[in-house]
Amino acid sequence: MNLPNALTYSHTLLADCVYAGATVVDATVGNGHDTVFLAQLVGPTGHVIGFDVQAAALQRTQTQLVLTGAADRVDLHLTGHEHVADYLTPTTQIAGAIFNLGYLPGGDKTRITRATTTLTAVRALLPHLTRGGRLLLMVYSGHPGGAAEATAVHQFCTTLPQHDYQVLQYGFINQIHQPPYLLAIERR
Amino acid sequence: MNLPNALTYSHTLLADCVYAGATVVDATVGNGHDTVFLAQLVGPTGHVIGFDVQAAALQRTQTQLVLTGAADRVDLHLTGHEHVADYLTPTTQIAGAIFNLGYLPGGDKTRITRATTTLTAVRALLPHLTRGGRLLLMVYSGHPGGAAEATAVHQFCTTLPQHDYQVLQYGFINQIHQPPYLLAIERR
Repeated sequence: MNLPNALTYSHTLLADCVYAGATVVDATVGNGHDTVFLAQLVGPTGHVIGFDVQAAALQRTQTQLVLTGAADRVDLHLTGHEHVADYLTPTTQIAGAIFNLGYLPGGDKTRITRATTTLTAVRALLPHLTRGGRLLLMVYSGHPGGAAEATAVHQFCTTLPQHDYQVLQYGFINQIHQPPYLLAIERR
Repeated sequence: MNLPNALTYSHTLLADCVYAGATVVDATVGNGHDTVFLAQLVGPTGHVIGFDVQAAALQRTQTQLVLTGAADRVDLHLTGHEHVADYLTPTTQIAGAIFNLGYLPGGDKTRITRATTTLTAVRALLPHLTRGGRLLLMVYSGHPGGAAEATAVHQFCTTLPQHDYQVLQYGFINQIHQPPYLLAIERR
């Protein structure tokens, strides 16, 4: 068994902390891979809240959810994840959340996530994490604008109080094409 | 289950790649925790080759090995790991190796591993790794001299050809007291 890449490892970390019936957030629905995966993890009694700014991405994901029989437990919102607080109540408990930063694969490469909105969403979500809950960020730095966002997100994570959170960095350091790396924030 | 720390994760990665009967290297025997762990992994038909420059550390480790019934499969050498090549044949296959950099806990904090000798040992070991074999480095940067070694080791790892090796960085980035992080080199 070889060392898993960052994307595979992010799913392992989600599977470890997301339980049947949980509420979770897909902050960047995109092609829907994470959304479908989360919907399977939470099961029929769970709830996935998803966000994306591109209608075509949400439509394709909705089709996938219908085909996999998981549409009933997923709410997709055509808005930026910086508005996530509008879709949570003060008592909402989140077991897991994932951000896939950068642009939509196969889509418009100029429509990218940005540090300001990404961090607004992260700050809004953290207080809702359960103990042992995880907020995962797949960080890409190879595209225009990616390095600035990566630096800001990384810097924010280093400042999170270690009494309340631990932040894991997981990634490969000898690859030419700047693969994404994973930042995993775990609520203690 | 919380995210494992770097030391715990290093043992998970060793347990994944070291099989019964394998030959492995503990490049920094120190207090012997890794040596005993490796001896258990390789079992009665395996072989652990250990190095340390401090006689007292080797004596304590030898006692632990006798008490755990694993002394027969372990050879401890009172010399620096930069001489590891002298203890391998051209056909020796290594399934796993571990370096715990820095100083001996509870010992003389001025006796530290250094980049030159550490990298001499790493370079000597890499050609002997089996496919899927792993060379792990626990990297400490908080002590005097630690940052220079960490920088050099990290830099070396970034230059390893990705066709032959992948190098994982695993560590926590929001802790005040500069905990060690893990670099895991896996032969493809």
